[in-house]
Amino acid sequence: MPSSRTVVAVDVGGTDIKAALVEGDPAAPVLVDRLRRATPRGATGAETADALVSLIADLVKTWSAESANPIEAVGVVVPGIVDAEAGVGVFSANLGWRDYPFRAALRERLGLPVVFDHDVRAGGLAEARLGAARGFTDAVVMPIGTGIAAALLLGGRLHSGGGYAGEVGHLSLGAGERCGCGQHGCLELRASSAAVARRYTERTGRPVRGAIDVANAVRAGDPDAAAVWAEAVEALAQAVILLTTLLGLQAVVLGGGLAMAGELLLAPLGDRLDELVSFQRRPELRLAALGDEAGCLGAALLAMDLLEG
Amino acid sequence: MPSSRTVVAVDVGGTDIKAALVEGDPAAPVLVDRLRRATPRGATGAETADALVSLIADLVKTWSAESANPIEAVGVVVPGIVDAEAGVGVFSANLGWRDYPFRAALRERLGLPVVFDHDVRAGGLAEARLGAARGFTDAVVMPIGTGIAAALLLGGRLHSGGGYAGEVGHLSLGAGERCGCGQHGCLELRASSAAVARRYTERTGRPVRGAIDVANAVRAGDPDAAAVWAEAVEALAQAVILLTTLLGLQAVVLGGGLAMAGELLLAPLGDRLDELVSFQRRPELRLAALGDEAGCLGAALLAMDLLEG
Repeated sequence: MPSSRTVVAVDVGGTDIKAALVEGDPAAPVLVDRLRRATPRGATGAETADALVSLIADLVKTWSAESANPIEAVGVVVPGIVDAEAGVGVFSANLGWRDYPFRAALRERLGLPVVFDHDVRAGGLAEARLGAARGFTDAVVMPIGTGIAAALLLGGRLHSGGGYAGEVGHLSLGAGERCGCGQHGCLELRASSAAVARRYTERTGRPVRGAIDVANAVRAGDPDAAAVWAEAVEALAQAVILLTTLLGLQAVVLGGGLAMAGELLLAPLGDRLDELVSFQRRPELRLAALGDEAGCLGAALLAMDLLEG
Repeated sequence: MPSSRTVVAVDVGGTDIKAALVEGDPAAPVLVDRLRRATPRGATGAETADALVSLIADLVKTWSAESANPIEAVGVVVPGIVDAEAGVGVFSANLGWRDYPFRAALRERLGLPVVFDHDVRAGGLAEARLGAARGFTDAVVMPIGTGIAAALLLGGRLHSGGGYAGEVGHLSLGAGERCGCGQHGCLELRASSAAVARRYTERTGRPVRGAIDVANAVRAGDPDAAAVWAEAVEALAQAVILLTTLLGLQAVVLGGGLAMAGELLLAPLGDRLDELVSFQRRPELRLAALGDEAGCLGAALLAMDLLEG
C-alpha cells in the first residue's frame, strides 16, 4: 500500500491557473487546498513562461510554509504541444512560448522533483484512474470547450505522440468552412462550445454567453438552436465513428462546456452512432466525472507517480 | 543474447496461405523454407476454419519430419477482426468465421505453443522491428491492396483495440460514394489498389489487371490515368493528415500493391502533405521494406517472442 504523499498540482490555462495542495495516495488524492490565479502574461512567450515559473515557485513556497507535511513533488500541466519526456513546452498558440524548458526551470527554482505534462492528457489520466474512463483500456477523453482536444488512452496507456497526439478538433470531416489551421471542415468549427454559440448568433443575430444558452434554447423549442445543435451532434458523431474505426474504442468520455448539456448531447449522439456503426467497436458514451478539477487531479497523480517511481 | 529458435509461421490470406519454416532469433529470423497453399474453403465459416486448422497441422507435421531442429512454436496470423489475447478469430468478412477459437484448436492439434494474431498487425510488427518502421515509436504501417488496413505502432507498441483498431480503409473523408460499410466517402473507395483499377475502367471503359497498369498509364502520359491517380493521392493525403493530427506520427509506411508504384505515389503524396501540415507532426513517408513476407515474418517474430517469454 502506498503511503500518503503531499504534492502541489498546477493546471495552467489560457485565462487562469488552478493550483492545489494535494494529499493522499494515487488511488485517492484529496485536494486539501485550492488557489486560482490569473495567468501571467509577458511581452513574449518566454517572458510569460518565466513569469509562470515564478508564480508557481511562490505558490509552492506559500504552501510549504503552511502545510503540516513537507511538499514532496510538484506536477505542472499546460496547454499546447508538450514534450513530457523532455519536460519542455514545445509550443502554445495561446500563451506564446516555444521550446521552453519548464521542468528544468521549475526544478532549479523549487529544489523538488517536478513532473511536467499536457493539460488534456493529465485530465484524461485522472478520468481514467478516478473518473468516467475507469475500467477501460481503450478510451478517448474529450473536453469540448473553446477548442476540442483529446486524451488517448490506448492499451491502458496515454498516447502522446511526442506531444502532438490528440488534436481531434482539427480532424477534417470533409467540405466545410476553412479553419485557421488551413484545413476545411474541422470538427471544432462545428462542435466546440465556442462554435455552437457563434453559429447560433450568426444564424439568429442574437448574442449568447455560450453553448449552454443554446442548449437551453433547444430545450425551450427554439428551431434555430435545434438546427445548430443537430449540426454539432452530427459532427461529433462523425468524429466518434472515425475515432473508433481507427482505434477500436470501448468508451468516449465527453467533457468541457458542451458536455454540461448532459443527455441533450448524449442521447442524440448515441442514436446517431448506432446508425453509423457497422463492423466497428461501438464505444460507450459517457460524461466526464471530474469537471474542471480533472487537470489538477491529473497533475497530482503524475507527481505522486513520480514519487512512487 | 537469445538462442536460435525454430518456428513455423503461417500468414492466412483470402486467396492463399503463405507458410514458412523460420530459424534464428527475433533480431534476425531467416525463412529457411517456404510453402504456399490455396486457402481452403468450407461450406460455412466454421468449416473453413476447421479446414485451415487441419492444413496448418499438416504443414507443421511435414516440417517436423524434415527439419533438423525440432519445431518449438507456431505463429498464425489471419485477416479480419482478431482477439489476439483470447486467441480468437472474431470475424472475417472474406473467410466467414465468427468467434472461432483458433489458438485453442491449433494447440490441441499440434501440442505446441501457438500464437494467433492479425495479419496486418503482424506485418506492422515485422516492419517495425526489421523493416521500414524500424527506429520509430509512433508510426502507421499501411498495406494498400484490395482494401486498406493499418498497423498502429504507438509508443513503441502495436495497438489492437481488442482487435478492432486500424480500419483506415473505412475512414470517411466526407461526401462521396456510399461504401459497403454504410458510410460515405471511405478512403478505400478512392485509394485502394482495387479502387484505382476500378475507377480507371469506369472512366475509360478499358479493363486493367490492377493499379500497377494504371500507374504505368500515368507514366505513359494517359490523362485519365493521371486524374484517377491524383484522386487516390489526394484521398491518401487526407487520410495521412488525419492520422497524424490524431496520433502524432513520426512515419507512415506504405505497402501493398499501390506502393509498388514507388515514387509515383510517394512524391505527390509528400508534396500534398507539406501543403496540409500546419501544427501537426509531419510524418516521414516510406515504402514498406518486407513486401509480402511481412505477415509471415511477423508471425515468426510473435512465435519467437512467445518462446522468449
